[in-house]
Amino acid sequence: MTKYYEDLSVGDRFPFGEYDVTDEEIREFAGKYDPQPFHLDAEAAADSVFGELVASGWHTASISMRLLVDHAFDDIAIVGGRGIDDLRWHRPIYPGETLSGSAEVVAKPEDGLRDTRGNVDFEITITKPDGSVAMSYVTLSMVRRRESP
Amino acid sequence: MTKYYEDLSVGDRFPFGEYDVTDEEIREFAGKYDPQPFHLDAEAAADSVFGELVASGWHTASISMRLLVDHAFDDIAIVGGRGIDDLRWHRPIYPGETLSGSAEVVAKPEDGLRDTRGNVDFEITITKPDGSVAMSYVTLSMVRRRESP
Repeated sequence: MTKYYEDLSVGDRFPFGEYDVTDEEIREFAGKYDPQPFHLDAEAAADSVFGELVASGWHTASISMRLLVDHAFDDIAIVGGRGIDDLRWHRPIYPGETLSGSAEVVAKPEDGLRDTRGNVDFEITITKPDGSVAMSYVTLSMVRRRESP
Repeated sequence: MTKYYEDLSVGDRFPFGEYDVTDEEIREFAGKYDPQPFHLDAEAAADSVFGELVASGWHTASISMRLLVDHAFDDIAIVGGRGIDDLRWHRPIYPGETLSGSAEVVAKPEDGLRDTRGNVDFEITITKPDGSVAMSYVTLSMVRRRESP
């Protein structure tokens, strides 16, 4: 059942499913949007701080959005996004890793309250197969109110 | 000529080229990474706050990375990214718009200084065809030092 602004509380948590990150998809994304050598070429990556091919940080962020849409936003009346705070890439993502994570409501800033919608901030955590955190950020969303005119 | 950490100063500015955002690419990106109705379906978008189909915010962010790599990072000895601060989507991106923008060095935080690299923060601005700002953020990068061991 669709959740509206009034249905969301700080502390609500939405666990994600899984996403397999393939070598092919890492290269495809990087070729389009982040053609730095360590995202495209194994030899160049061997000479980088990463030691081997790694996913673009924006690729990991895009994957996190897919997990968020499939496992949280699919049941929330999302109006749109305002922005992102404090995005950090804690650990690189290597080909063949399976990512998961969660979204948690961390704030409902009152200054964004309108007749039709309110602001809801979710902390996103993306984890590697060993459970360590690969990426985290806070996404600033707008959610429709139940009693929208 | 490659620019190292020592070659970059606060205030240095790198103007971007242009990137055409097509309807097809908006739907392709959204289908993979952000399948919310207002990024995929014109009818659903007409009922949204956007009024018509709009690019995923993560798509705009990924495009900004391509502009950054092609017009700034191509001449800078980038080691990798630490994270993103204060990303804001100021205006939606519609199909057929051409994006541009710039990167500007806004800080060289001393606490990140190592023998091999230093931290350099760039403010990224993405503009619409009318010159208005569509998106902005600060990207926290690591840049190789000229005298790396």
